[in-house]
Amino acid sequence: MTHIPPLALTMGEPAGIGGEIALKAWRRRGEGVPSFFVVDDPDRLARLAARLGVTVPIASIAAPAEAAAAFADALPVLPQALARDVAPGRPDPANTPSVRRSIERAVALARSGEAAAVVTNPINKQVMYQGGFEFPGHTEFLASLMGGLQREVMMLACPELRVVPVTIHVALAEAVRTLRQADIVAIGRVTARALAVDFGIDRPRLAVAALNPHAGEGGAMGDEETAIIAPAIAELAAAGIDAFGPLPSDTLFHPRARAGYDAVLCMYHDQALIPIKTIDFDGGVNVTLGLEIVRTSPDHGTAFEIAGTGAANETSLVAALRMAAEIAANRHRRR
Amino acid sequence: MTHIPPLALTMGEPAGIGGEIALKAWRRRGEGVPSFFVVDDPDRLARLAARLGVTVPIASIAAPAEAAAAFADALPVLPQALARDVAPGRPDPANTPSVRRSIERAVALARSGEAAAVVTNPINKQVMYQGGFEFPGHTEFLASLMGGLQREVMMLACPELRVVPVTIHVALAEAVRTLRQADIVAIGRVTARALAVDFGIDRPRLAVAALNPHAGEGGAMGDEETAIIAPAIAELAAAGIDAFGPLPSDTLFHPRARAGYDAVLCMYHDQALIPIKTIDFDGGVNVTLGLEIVRTSPDHGTAFEIAGTGAANETSLVAALRMAAEIAANRHRRR
Repeated sequence: MTHIPPLALTMGEPAGIGGEIALKAWRRRGEGVPSFFVVDDPDRLARLAARLGVTVPIASIAAPAEAAAAFADALPVLPQALARDVAPGRPDPANTPSVRRSIERAVALARSGEAAAVVTNPINKQVMYQGGFEFPGHTEFLASLMGGLQREVMMLACPELRVVPVTIHVALAEAVRTLRQADIVAIGRVTARALAVDFGIDRPRLAVAALNPHAGEGGAMGDEETAIIAPAIAELAAAGIDAFGPLPSDTLFHPRARAGYDAVLCMYHDQALIPIKTIDFDGGVNVTLGLEIVRTSPDHGTAFEIAGTGAANETSLVAALRMAAEIAANRHRRR
Repeated sequence: MTHIPPLALTMGEPAGIGGEIALKAWRRRGEGVPSFFVVDDPDRLARLAARLGVTVPIASIAAPAEAAAAFADALPVLPQALARDVAPGRPDPANTPSVRRSIERAVALARSGEAAAVVTNPINKQVMYQGGFEFPGHTEFLASLMGGLQREVMMLACPELRVVPVTIHVALAEAVRTLRQADIVAIGRVTARALAVDFGIDRPRLAVAALNPHAGEGGAMGDEETAIIAPAIAELAAAGIDAFGPLPSDTLFHPRARAGYDAVLCMYHDQALIPIKTIDFDGGVNVTLGLEIVRTSPDHGTAFEIAGTGAANETSLVAALRMAAEIAANRHRRR
């Protein structure tokens, strides 16, 4: 792989499992996990390692440039102080500014080129809101740090499948009601470009899922296919994108079907999330397409209920780190 | 397995792949495929075998009782004449009465106990309508043959998963709009009973899927969970059924989650069909619960485009035959 700078991993919610999976991911450095550093409190990570009984030396670093050399022997940590001590599973909104600052610094380092990408540990929105955070979520905050001129698009990816939901965190009734041709086209364009640039696919094939069962069966079960989705596909095709559909979503995700495309545009959250979490529950990665920087994250939350117990599974974070490095390398090659 | 009478397999649409998969299923009789007979035209099946180049001796039988003895050496066929010769891929509505008669006779034999179950080959609704068929589909016709007092419920089943959609062949907007507590309860009751009687599960565990992403996140993304689904689950629980949910559908179908239930009640077609067809595209079986007789069918259509070419895959029919025999044996044991 092309030599790239280390990846910046954010602290995430410190009362969640972010610290634990960071420690465990570092312990798998012999398995092709790319060099990364955490923007976090070195002392709290050292205490966490002791509590969990895992041997992870912590190396405080002054700059990302020191991370690669330190990585073989210790987990490099760019210090970010916490306002309060942290007890696993007991989030304290007073730490919100530290959580936020960790994200800001990681993004700044990725923008300057000192970090190859940002990998974000999960945050908890309710805790952040109580602490004064004013963005709907992680991704909107990231976009705002880059001037807000991004068209950020969420992709879920595992080795077998990439899916992009067009509507996301809304009630199913609202997803149906608000499905718009313009959104399908805009998200399809960002996705096709990212498949080429970030995933190194020369001529990306973009399958577009239908909304209704059997793709509406010629209008007998809903007209969104003919009124909204097919015209969007025609627009994408006219823009030179190899987009096709609308395809019945039940027959779209088995292994033979998956061989026919590089990603699927899905019309609603569970249409995208059911297949990928059925296929690879632990290893899915959340990739934000359309940003100036490379950003991935593990596809799970803060898991307060198991924080501090040693039960957290680092598989998704390891996959997120690997994917961030691959995307960064692909972008580098294109320069 | 308990000794049970042979299974009755219907002709289905004769211009489709039904005949071909029947021939191929018989050739797998050494692999634990239970004894069955087809209600079909023996001459047309013999011609089809010759055309496809598969060696399948045809044994015309006068009654199901002759099927078991004949099965080892030939495919037993209870003769049902066709009105017209059949060309694969070219359906003729003039044969509709023969297709219909094959179903009627199979059902009558199952009701009399001469056949252990009915396995239906796929029909084509458009062709049947042109031929004067007046029922919305196969299942409604079957229910009417049993006096119309059935509460027929569609289950899709493969070795790893059983799913039951509460709303089925309607637009997604209509599925959301017409989701009713009473339907969830009625279908949940039929499903729980069938899991016990037909599948031999002593205390069936019935997972109930949410409609909205993240199960509505406490009402933030839709109120169907609190207004419709949770009350239905409470009703089922009050009736002594181990029903639980509503559960977010994206995290409901991976292997560890599947270990926690025996079937999932799904709120709409693709919520049920996406996971099962992703997990087992070829081997899924359609089981009609709540009927007086046992009825299964392969989970695919007439496939006119490949009829007569030899490309048809008999996996789903073989699974449907096996499942019909298992259900019949379970019912027999309960008597």
